[in-house]
Amino acid sequence: MKEILIINGPNLNLLGKREPEVYGHVGFESLLKDLQEKYKESVELSYFQSNHEGAIIDMLHSSGFSKDGIILNAGAYTHTSVAIADAIKAIDTPVIEVHISNTFQRESFRHHSFLSPAVKGVIVGFGLDSYRLAIESII
Amino acid sequence: MKEILIINGPNLNLLGKREPEVYGHVGFESLLKDLQEKYKESVELSYFQSNHEGAIIDMLHSSGFSKDGIILNAGAYTHTSVAIADAIKAIDTPVIEVHISNTFQRESFRHHSFLSPAVKGVIVGFGLDSYRLAIESII
Amino acid sequence: MKEILIINGPNLNLLGKREPEVYGHVGFESLLKDLQEKYKESVELSYFQSNHEGAIIDMLHSSGFSKDGIILNAGAYTHTSVAIADAIKAIDTPVIEVHISNTFQRESFRHHSFLSPAVKGVIVGFGLDSYRLAIESII
Amino acid sequence: MKEILIINGPNLNLLGKREPEVYGHVGFESLLKDLQEKYKESVELSYFQSNHEGAIIDMLHSSGFSKDGIILNAGAYTHTSVAIADAIKAIDTPVIEVHISNTFQRESFRHHSFLSPAVKGVIVGFGLDSYRLAIESII
Amino acid sequence: MKEILIINGPNLNLLGKREPEVYGHVGFESLLKDLQEKYKESVELSYFQSNHEGAIIDMLHSSGFSKDGIILNAGAYTHTSVAIADAIKAIDTPVIEVHISNTFQRESFRHHSFLSPAVKGVIVGFGLDSYRLAIESII
Amino acid sequence: MKEILIINGPNLNLLGKREPEVYGHVGFESLLKDLQEKYKESVELSYFQSNHEGAIIDMLHSSGFSKDGIILNAGAYTHTSVAIADAIKAIDTPVIEVHISNTFQRESFRHHSFLSPAVKGVIVGFGLDSYRLAIESII
Amino acid sequence: MKEILIINGPNLNLLGKREPEVYGHVGFESLLKDLQEKYKESVELSYFQSNHEGAIIDMLHSSGFSKDGIILNAGAYTHTSVAIADAIKAIDTPVIEVHISNTFQRESFRHHSFLSPAVKGVIVGFGLDSYRLAIESII
Amino acid sequence: MKEILIINGPNLNLLGKREPEVYGHVGFESLLKDLQEKYKESVELSYFQSNHEGAIIDMLHSSGFSKDGIILNAGAYTHTSVAIADAIKAIDTPVIEVHISNTFQRESFRHHSFLSPAVKGVIVGFGLDSYRLAIESII
Amino acid sequence: MKEILIINGPNLNLLGKREPEVYGHVGFESLLKDLQEKYKESVELSYFQSNHEGAIIDMLHSSGFSKDGIILNAGAYTHTSVAIADAIKAIDTPVIEVHISNTFQRESFRHHSFLSPAVKGVIVGFGLDSYRLAIESII
Amino acid sequence: MKEILIINGPNLNLLGKREPEVYGHVGFESLLKDLQEKYKESVELSYFQSNHEGAIIDMLHSSGFSKDGIILNAGAYTHTSVAIADAIKAIDTPVIEVHISNTFQRESFRHHSFLSPAVKGVIVGFGLDSYRLAIESII
Amino acid sequence: MKEILIINGPNLNLLGKREPEVYGHVGFESLLKDLQEKYKESVELSYFQSNHEGAIIDMLHSSGFSKDGIILNAGAYTHTSVAIADAIKAIDTPVIEVHISNTFQRESFRHHSFLSPAVKGVIVGFGLDSYRLAIESII
Amino acid sequence: MKEILIINGPNLNLLGKREPEVYGHVGFESLLKDLQEKYKESVELSYFQSNHEGAIIDMLHSSGFSKDGIILNAGAYTHTSVAIADAIKAIDTPVIEVHISNTFQRESFRHHSFLSPAVKGVIVGFGLDSYRLAIESII
Repeated sequence: MKEILIINGPNLNLLGKREPEVYGHVGFESLLKDLQEKYKESVELSYFQSNHEGAIIDMLHSSGFSKDGIILNAGAYTHTSVAIADAIKAIDTPVIEVHISNTFQRESFRHHSFLSPAVKGVIVGFGLDSYRLAIESII
Repeated sequence: MKEILIINGPNLNLLGKREPEVYGHVGFESLLKDLQEKYKESVELSYFQSNHEGAIIDMLHSSGFSKDGIILNAGAYTHTSVAIADAIKAIDTPVIEVHISNTFQRESFRHHSFLSPAVKGVIVGFGLDSYRLAIESII
Repeated sequence: MKEILIINGPNLNLLGKREPEVYGHVGFESLLKDLQEKYKESVELSYFQSNHEGAIIDMLHSSGFSKDGIILNAGAYTHTSVAIADAIKAIDTPVIEVHISNTFQRESFRHHSFLSPAVKGVIVGFGLDSYRLAIESII
Repeated sequence: MKEILIINGPNLNLLGKREPEVYGHVGFESLLKDLQEKYKESVELSYFQSNHEGAIIDMLHSSGFSKDGIILNAGAYTHTSVAIADAIKAIDTPVIEVHISNTFQRESFRHHSFLSPAVKGVIVGFGLDSYRLAIESII
Repeated sequence: MKEILIINGPNLNLLGKREPEVYGHVGFESLLKDLQEKYKESVELSYFQSNHEGAIIDMLHSSGFSKDGIILNAGAYTHTSVAIADAIKAIDTPVIEVHISNTFQRESFRHHSFLSPAVKGVIVGFGLDSYRLAIESII
Repeated sequence: MKEILIINGPNLNLLGKREPEVYGHVGFESLLKDLQEKYKESVELSYFQSNHEGAIIDMLHSSGFSKDGIILNAGAYTHTSVAIADAIKAIDTPVIEVHISNTFQRESFRHHSFLSPAVKGVIVGFGLDSYRLAIESII
Repeated sequence: MKEILIINGPNLNLLGKREPEVYGHVGFESLLKDLQEKYKESVELSYFQSNHEGAIIDMLHSSGFSKDGIILNAGAYTHTSVAIADAIKAIDTPVIEVHISNTFQRESFRHHSFLSPAVKGVIVGFGLDSYRLAIESII
Repeated sequence: MKEILIINGPNLNLLGKREPEVYGHVGFESLLKDLQEKYKESVELSYFQSNHEGAIIDMLHSSGFSKDGIILNAGAYTHTSVAIADAIKAIDTPVIEVHISNTFQRESFRHHSFLSPAVKGVIVGFGLDSYRLAIESII
Repeated sequence: MKEILIINGPNLNLLGKREPEVYGHVGFESLLKDLQEKYKESVELSYFQSNHEGAIIDMLHSSGFSKDGIILNAGAYTHTSVAIADAIKAIDTPVIEVHISNTFQRESFRHHSFLSPAVKGVIVGFGLDSYRLAIESII
Repeated sequence: MKEILIINGPNLNLLGKREPEVYGHVGFESLLKDLQEKYKESVELSYFQSNHEGAIIDMLHSSGFSKDGIILNAGAYTHTSVAIADAIKAIDTPVIEVHISNTFQRESFRHHSFLSPAVKGVIVGFGLDSYRLAIESII
Repeated sequence: MKEILIINGPNLNLLGKREPEVYGHVGFESLLKDLQEKYKESVELSYFQSNHEGAIIDMLHSSGFSKDGIILNAGAYTHTSVAIADAIKAIDTPVIEVHISNTFQRESFRHHSFLSPAVKGVIVGFGLDSYRLAIESII
Repeated sequence: MKEILIINGPNLNLLGKREPEVYGHVGFESLLKDLQEKYKESVELSYFQSNHEGAIIDMLHSSGFSKDGIILNAGAYTHTSVAIADAIKAIDTPVIEVHISNTFQRESFRHHSFLSPAVKGVIVGFGLDSYRLAIESII
């Protein structure tokens, strides 16, 4: 059994409610259940969401020396947080960066990620399926 | 009765105490009382201040689907927070961006606001009167 | 009685006719009458429009030592005219910069204003109501 | 059965031979056989490699109205070819952009992709496994 | 007796564990004890660490009107936080900015500090000895 | 009969006299006569020249809702006038931007045109023949 | 009889099929026939299309010392090819640069042309009629 | 006798009244009389002031083929007007650019002059004495 | 005997014909014969020219594991081709970059070479003698 | 009697010999004699030239507390020397910056002067007459 | 006994005399005596000042293989001298960069130091006390 | 016999001692002897080294009207000295710029040379053999 943690950053608690033309109408909880069901034989899937940059760093620290993989959608902090990038480099667990929308089709400030140079791999633009591909990349 | 929430960002708890040549000598509490008194017939005015970017986002989420208007002075986060801008776009309540000082007369990194493209309107430079004008714009 | 002058810059004579999806369908004259009526007890409201940068400067000079306030929507000259900014700094009357649309949601060259560092305050994005708020800020 | 075409761009014919500390020691042919074997029930997997920008465009045109998916690792043309990006937008078949190495950890001119805004999704940094994840994203 | 507060920012709780080739193998606690012992005659040395930008601002506010000096290693927030810089300017206690590594030898985004224009002095690159030099500068 | 207006901007009144190695030795009047003669069956060709940005805007407004086409050589205002670009967008008549010299072979500040995104088409570098081609494009 | 060659660059073979909201529904072949018919008295019109930058250069070399004019729509290579610009400067035949769409209304990387400083004239934004105007400019 | 024309641009009609800490307390008229008196033997000194960019161009055209020298303080148009620079290049009379204040000590947008590459010489920062030096340079 | 291959890029087939004021009047063939003659004792000198970026890459691949040295004048691809730079890094044979003209005296886009960081050495500006010096550097 | 020192920077010892199409054919010595003769009643004119940045600074220090004026043509150091600018600010004697050629018509790196913000006034482009005008400005 | 050399760069010979509001009223000599006295038990402190970039390099070479530490305040050369940075990297003795004023509060060209990436540590903004802290960092 | 002067700039006196992984272990003197020996029949080879920018300029002046060629490795001054570039343009003797290491593989500020546009040719990256190739280019 692999232990995988999914971390969602700011505003992703509103998924299904926020800008549905960009992010779709499905909330993250139902996706989480589907993934837990689908991979229940091989993966123990846990979940954390916060709008606080510091709380995401705390969680990376507390889980980053025991989990087998972390899937991180840092939302807007992707583009502004050197501190989260440093946290990723400071821990042992490999981190996969995911994005629901194709960030390269949006505002230019979303084209740059402070996290990408620190992570193992990046998956962008497959809608909620980005999370499943990230799990596939770990197992 | 319109329900309006004023959100003040980092360091604005020191108003009246911090750089008085820029921000003046009056604390925000006395202004708040004046405004509540002045508009008591038509507006229910509530107030929130935090130095935490995440707490401001949490508050936008929790009040952004019921209030009639939000007046936001995000302080320094104006210039650095994509996450707050995303929160504004994610909620239903219209947000008015206000600034006490004329930010365009200050350091060049204060000339750019990540929030302005997300808000309904922007009011800059009228001292504490900026808040009153924002209330006027909603009612 | 306060004497207030509204100056509108280039293309604002076409208001109601020009790009109505950006600027709305109402011409400025009807707004002016409403405002004059509404504030007739306390404000003497005059009006000037020109497509000529030089004519706007001339008007700022001739009224800028006697009026109590000037409300300036310099249109496209906002983004290109150092000369109007210098005129604002050269006169005694405080100037309020207003914009009908939220300029920060439009082309990037509209995000910079040469005038903002020279004016007392800036009001952006409230439609024609921006002018009313500017009057409120003066009285 | 889904028809999927993998297109590899310049220098990827040297895979296993070229800069092995960046790209590894395995040639692409052995990976291709593995993938064809693994997905033989559900996918008909074809392959094309060229060092010619024009040949890649020709292939996108000739297969881009019949295939179910195209997996494109355009190598160095990722960073310089507007013409390939235009070809992707001109065809019907969705294209997945993949990279073997984490391009964001390399020279700064490799951080920008002309193709990303034109593709359905982007997968970066998983070594040769990036191709498998791309197949997973299509089926 | 001078009262001095050391504030460490994000990821510095992992000191001794994180990227030891950059930051060394010693945790901060043992350094703190050494410094408290060394300066016990003249300095009352307290300590605070947080990964939360807002918590650092709160602490600057609560101690910044009574302490004799604050030594701040804001870690990654050095390069992104206008809000902490504003907090430094808002308080009375002089702040010394320190860095363990020579930030000018690292990624270019670490060459710029929002804090430096707000602090009394800057000490960079002496390893953990940077903290001792900062204490020396205050007493 | 199509009604077409040619508008020439600053310094083009000196055509034939000014920098003849760039603009040639022929004045605009003789060209105008030739064109009026050549197209007299199908086109009513009128002409306006001004060195005043505001006068060009006034003319675009007064003719831009009745003419069938406007041919505009805005001279140096091409590179500096947002106000003329706004005027073009504000009117109904399609505008063709023309230049006598190949502006892309000259100083770099002449490579950018504020007008080009607002016009129907652009014709550059054919000498005085640029005007004839513009007429051809309308009829 | 003037000999004129039209060269179309990458993706223009898909005209009528590719992004019809930008380029229209008509393929280039039918236009070519119309033009050959219309100018059959005075022009011998030949045609070449390639998606290969090198093939366009080869063609410019082989026809650039005998034809009377070359009409070049280099598509995406307009914005990236120094080599085609050099080829234009290396040959004797004057080249006219044409674009179907108004490239100045599209992505910012399409606003710059490496070819424009090398050609005789530029015609942008008249749809397929741009080609006819280019022929007019030669004869 | 040499005929020299002094042209003053926008806001210079307020000299002595506008920002006296930058421009001094003396109006231009008294200086003009002094200069006319001082050089009455050798120079016929005339004067023109306008806040209109177009009027300055008109004046350069009408006097630029007969005067012996033109002294131009274009004020804010110095930094924004390509059209005035073109007018200077279009005429025969040599033009001397003068500035009262040291523009290089002021805002960065005042460090660039579109006019300097077009004029014969530039004199900056000598207060009103800049005009006298310009006359000296001509005679 | 050392085996050396000279590769010439786009437009260099026109040498002696193209812009002779920049490149001189001598074609490459006569130079090649001279060099073959001069070094016939110690060097086996072969030659390849193509206007196709892909063909140059193909040639680098096919000769880059057996030749003793490659002399590359990539012409305009010097400034635009990441793919050729990658090919140079992917092969074993050392590559010398040469240019006939002093590229640093020409347009600014010719000052940057994508190839220089990948080659062993660079020789610029000695006319056709640059090739001889490159041979000297290998033997 | 006013004491004035002229300092010439690097390569100005070659005046009359160096690039005469830019700097003219007259050496500085003959000019110096003319000026000494012309102003012998009122000015004691001394002269210093060096190609060493440090020697120019030394001379500014040793004469900058006793002379009445210094005329400085720092040549190429104008564009690169912060140290000379600091020396000018460190001394009491006012410094006039002069240039023989119109630096704004030359390479773009000659458009910026580190010295201009530090000097009293700037005189550019009058040939050797620039020195005379500088003397005029002091007396 | 440790041998330490202090090197001061351009204009620092005027300390106490130059811009006292920035650098204070004390000359360097009195500080030097104080430091020699204070550390006479453990440090042999020597001193060198020059306004010549080359002389500073010569001194770094002649002392940089025998001294135990060098304290360098390169003044304005900090921001412009690659050669001094190379000298620091070329020698064995560790170098400490110091500045008297907080350079990050001054002009933007003073925010960048070519030396910082080459030195062991940087101490900025403690007035003359910066030198003492540097000595402390070495012993 | 040709007279050739080699000029080495700052820090090159430490060759063989300084950063040997970049510059190698051989001092320049032994190379000089080898070259003098090798070319003794045809070349009189002299040598000058200085760490002073001004001394290099002085030497260029004193030898630049009599020598047949100058080989210049200006070290770090390559990237910062407009004054040396001006000296090269001011003299008659052709100058060859050489570099030992491949400067294009090093820090980005080493990619730009102020000297390259002024010299006859540039030779980069052949180690000490760069000097021999430069001699070859002259004879």
